[in-house]
Amino acid sequence: MALNVGVVGVGKIGQEHIRRLTETLAGVRVVAVSDADAARADEVAARVPGAKAYPTGEELIAAKEVDAVIVTSWGDTHAAYVIAAIRAGKPVFCEKPMATTEEDCSAILDAEAAFGKRVVQIGFMRRFDTQYRAMKETVQKGAIGTPLMFHSVHRNAFSPGHFKATMAITDTAVHDIDIARFVLDDEPVAIAVKAPRGNSRAGGVADPLFTLMDMRSGALVTIETSVHIAYGYDIRGEVIGETGTVSLAEQNEVVLKVNGAFSGRVFADWPERFDPAFDAEFRAWISAAGKGGAAGPSAWDGYVATAATLAGVKALASGAREPINLRDKPALYA
Amino acid sequence: MALNVGVVGVGKIGQEHIRRLTETLAGVRVVAVSDADAARADEVAARVPGAKAYPTGEELIAAKEVDAVIVTSWGDTHAAYVIAAIRAGKPVFCEKPMATTEEDCSAILDAEAAFGKRVVQIGFMRRFDTQYRAMKETVQKGAIGTPLMFHSVHRNAFSPGHFKATMAITDTAVHDIDIARFVLDDEPVAIAVKAPRGNSRAGGVADPLFTLMDMRSGALVTIETSVHIAYGYDIRGEVIGETGTVSLAEQNEVVLKVNGAFSGRVFADWPERFDPAFDAEFRAWISAAGKGGAAGPSAWDGYVATAATLAGVKALASGAREPINLRDKPALYA
Amino acid sequence: MALNVGVVGVGKIGQEHIRRLTETLAGVRVVAVSDADAARADEVAARVPGAKAYPTGEELIAAKEVDAVIVTSWGDTHAAYVIAAIRAGKPVFCEKPMATTEEDCSAILDAEAAFGKRVVQIGFMRRFDTQYRAMKETVQKGAIGTPLMFHSVHRNAFSPGHFKATMAITDTAVHDIDIARFVLDDEPVAIAVKAPRGNSRAGGVADPLFTLMDMRSGALVTIETSVHIAYGYDIRGEVIGETGTVSLAEQNEVVLKVNGAFSGRVFADWPERFDPAFDAEFRAWISAAGKGGAAGPSAWDGYVATAATLAGVKALASGAREPINLRDKPALYA
Amino acid sequence: MALNVGVVGVGKIGQEHIRRLTETLAGVRVVAVSDADAARADEVAARVPGAKAYPTGEELIAAKEVDAVIVTSWGDTHAAYVIAAIRAGKPVFCEKPMATTEEDCSAILDAEAAFGKRVVQIGFMRRFDTQYRAMKETVQKGAIGTPLMFHSVHRNAFSPGHFKATMAITDTAVHDIDIARFVLDDEPVAIAVKAPRGNSRAGGVADPLFTLMDMRSGALVTIETSVHIAYGYDIRGEVIGETGTVSLAEQNEVVLKVNGAFSGRVFADWPERFDPAFDAEFRAWISAAGKGGAAGPSAWDGYVATAATLAGVKALASGAREPINLRDKPALYA
Repeated sequence: MALNVGVVGVGKIGQEHIRRLTETLAGVRVVAVSDADAARADEVAARVPGAKAYPTGEELIAAKEVDAVIVTSWGDTHAAYVIAAIRAGKPVFCEKPMATTEEDCSAILDAEAAFGKRVVQIGFMRRFDTQYRAMKETVQKGAIGTPLMFHSVHRNAFSPGHFKATMAITDTAVHDIDIARFVLDDEPVAIAVKAPRGNSRAGGVADPLFTLMDMRSGALVTIETSVHIAYGYDIRGEVIGETGTVSLAEQNEVVLKVNGAFSGRVFADWPERFDPAFDAEFRAWISAAGKGGAAGPSAWDGYVATAATLAGVKALASGAREPINLRDKPALYA
Repeated sequence: MALNVGVVGVGKIGQEHIRRLTETLAGVRVVAVSDADAARADEVAARVPGAKAYPTGEELIAAKEVDAVIVTSWGDTHAAYVIAAIRAGKPVFCEKPMATTEEDCSAILDAEAAFGKRVVQIGFMRRFDTQYRAMKETVQKGAIGTPLMFHSVHRNAFSPGHFKATMAITDTAVHDIDIARFVLDDEPVAIAVKAPRGNSRAGGVADPLFTLMDMRSGALVTIETSVHIAYGYDIRGEVIGETGTVSLAEQNEVVLKVNGAFSGRVFADWPERFDPAFDAEFRAWISAAGKGGAAGPSAWDGYVATAATLAGVKALASGAREPINLRDKPALYA
Repeated sequence: MALNVGVVGVGKIGQEHIRRLTETLAGVRVVAVSDADAARADEVAARVPGAKAYPTGEELIAAKEVDAVIVTSWGDTHAAYVIAAIRAGKPVFCEKPMATTEEDCSAILDAEAAFGKRVVQIGFMRRFDTQYRAMKETVQKGAIGTPLMFHSVHRNAFSPGHFKATMAITDTAVHDIDIARFVLDDEPVAIAVKAPRGNSRAGGVADPLFTLMDMRSGALVTIETSVHIAYGYDIRGEVIGETGTVSLAEQNEVVLKVNGAFSGRVFADWPERFDPAFDAEFRAWISAAGKGGAAGPSAWDGYVATAATLAGVKALASGAREPINLRDKPALYA
Repeated sequence: MALNVGVVGVGKIGQEHIRRLTETLAGVRVVAVSDADAARADEVAARVPGAKAYPTGEELIAAKEVDAVIVTSWGDTHAAYVIAAIRAGKPVFCEKPMATTEEDCSAILDAEAAFGKRVVQIGFMRRFDTQYRAMKETVQKGAIGTPLMFHSVHRNAFSPGHFKATMAITDTAVHDIDIARFVLDDEPVAIAVKAPRGNSRAGGVADPLFTLMDMRSGALVTIETSVHIAYGYDIRGEVIGETGTVSLAEQNEVVLKVNGAFSGRVFADWPERFDPAFDAEFRAWISAAGKGGAAGPSAWDGYVATAATLAGVKALASGAREPINLRDKPALYA
């Protein structure tokens, strides 16, 4: 009765998902893995009892024992695997970005629409975070009146060696863009990106960035990304409504009072901050995939995120406010 | 490779543990259940795929397919099942109270000492709570100097219909007593219980209670139990050291600002507050039991908790400070 | 039109009050000072434009230009000066303790009752603190139901060289005792004091202390005094009612996030914490004294504080719960 | 020895300042008032013992008994009075805006520079707020590294009947603009203003506004003004540096726990929030003016605030980023 999962792409994130599925969560087994690096696929398979390495993602997707697929390969390759899974009628969990071009995203939308049923779930784990869910619920029930602004703050202590300024949009702000859409239940129409005085710790790339995203309703989303801020991983958010606001509460375990000060710990990095959200995300997926479907963020959400971040990259280069022209939304996602 | 578990006593708590083991956690299966109410055992077994109902706990414990045992029957019956499991060499998780008399507790200690290895784990889930663990770690590393006091506050919105004042000690304060021992790494020597002005919502029983427990080191533990306080389930704690203090941080998801006030939610009840701790507790047990052992709170901890709460019950009646005379600690628990 | 004030006793506290009256507050002048140390009186008078030194407090009180009197001499001498002021019909502000014996307190009560009008105000400045006032108001309007307990915490970073354990009751806990009466609108009937494991920084005297005070209504007041706790000056308080609680909010200016932690400053000492309360206390006094009366804490409050702390000193020595037997309350204080 | 003050313009703000000077603060007397409405001047003078009404501000400024001047007339008239005071060599406290045109501001700068000594103090009271002072100090000592951004939030529950969108810049954001300059020790170079989805409670005017101000160093200042947000008066601020952040702590008196939630009060309006800052501002002024000078915000600060807000008004209309071209800074303000 457990869900038998195949994982396409077993780099760092893929392995982390395998660990979560095999060591933490109930009702799921990892039965197949594949990777562009065949040796790595073999090595990972050897460590996961019951898992077999496949030479290609396509073969893995086609394999009989595979009930559902997780795509954690490089972003450029996502679309092909996701479409293959859709065509095979197999539920597929795809890490963000769903695809790196609007064309690839659109192809996925068309494939899923043609299949006629949602089978794609995108890895926007924040949608499963209890804090953001409480925020959305607060907005939805009208507690703060019509939402007018959303201030999102995304801070990382450091960024990987290969960091480029555009990644602060495509890899970092993408989460804020998606969660703003989720919380506000609204779509973006334009985006502008400012590069303030740079952090000297950022090795010459533009950091921080300050993004302004206009929503269809007129609501304004602001996003601060500071990805070399040293002190920790800090995700802040506040929705401003007509009559009140709702913001993410600070989280910490204990408060220490010593030496003339009170203090508490800030999260070190995202795996720690969002660990329960990752659990919840996969629990929802395992349950939905077990019934042949998907939960939470859809291919449409993946598409809009890519469209918005690509417009953001353009806006960073141009210095101008760039439109986000979304294609028509297939009825499947209504 | 999954741990095959039998559950003795499938009332509310037992069923909740079964749900957690089968729907939430990896690496475990529930293969056997028993209950004083045979119909209930059958009914629960019917709902858990792969589980078989046994007429008695003894037969369940003896069953070949049972690797490890969970005891969630009525408190008075715990000792017999726990001792049977020890003698069968099977890891056993026993809900608190480990037993309701010091004699029964002592018999368990003797049985486990005779077996020569820890196989008993007691259900003090707070020891797996990240907040208390951070508190203990803070104390242990000397951040606040030598601990001198521990203020613990235990509030329930309401109590069950069958509530008696002594239950605020044996069922409520028992958690605070155990966690104070855990955080301070100290043993109780005496206990006094005051009954302040009573809550009119408590239906005539003495509530709140204020307990003072003296520790071997001289440290003072104070415990407020307010079990009809209406506003929510609220667990507060602060350790006062020579140079500083450490306290449990407030937890909440979002902060709302409306109508001239900021506000946030308080937990409604203990399953919500300690849900992640229950997960962590059983993860630790599954892992340890898989190796034939136990993790976290031991039979000794179960014994001291019972001894201290029984002295507390006596103190409530006498109005005096009652000694807590602990037996010698078997070397197994050193 | 300004109030002309004479100050009896110009040690540290007296000089601090003179500074506040002359440099900070409107509507008041210091026109006379006296001190057991005549040279000190001369010196202080020389620094305060318009102030004259008197050889004795009695002469100062009798002086024509003195509208109202502040008594900040040693505690043992308070009663004589306060009674002299009452008999002169002059409003008198007396620092706590109002007197050091119940007899002296009683003599003041009798004198003021005979005078027939409140002219005595005692220096319990917490009653003018906006936080405690909000707490009292919250309780009074029934927001938490009937109050059942009050937990008060009084922490000093260090204590003066001449500190004795009894001072933690008479000089420290006295504030908590008074404010508990104020917030709960209740009177004490008994007191017990426990001395937990001692702080090694306390130089051999018993610190911390944990005091339990029973109120007439049955409400329980607990008071932790930790007067060598190094980290700062920290005043905490929480009232526990039948349906909720109200507690003093933490106060700080800015929150810093650096090095993996958030942090903020704790007050260093009481002058900083209660500076606005001292301003408010004297504003209320200046206004009331200008009309020949007094505001806030009365001679009765001064008496009960002394009676309770003396019982507390006895309780610390005896280890027993000591009764607080209050005399009849003159109608003046009803 | 008290400072004798004349107040030009005794409308609401002028009367409030008179109340503070006469009823709250030491060392100052109000001896003269004037107003465009002569009857109002007479009426106010009649209520302030020792105060005389003058037919014009010019005569008041020239009056022998007037040591120092407070200008609280309508903004358009400020410059003439301030310049008259400078020429009379009298310290002058001028409410914001210092003047409503850059020309008038410049004339004040020239007059004070010609006088050769600072005698003008502008009413940016936030500079005397303990929270902002702690924030500035934190930044100055390098605790968060070089500052890169400042997020300021300015919320009013409601706005007066005559509110226009530009007032959210000239009357509201002007405070944020000034305090950002103060905290960052930096000057603005350009400003842009966005009008998000409007608050339906704002009666058709654009509210909220979101302002982006670029500083000379490259630091970015963002200012949210929401002036019909109903829930209260809320001033938030955070400086983001290279290695950390510092933000204004939340302020409240008590925390209430009832009905499943904790809660606390938000300030109702600015007089309550900044009352201690107003006291501190005037204490500093009384002290400095007593020595013939001025403290805190200078005429230069008044000028830059006007220049920046006028550029902001232009930016709101144009939708573009408008430069803020500051004149040369006289050596007096170096």
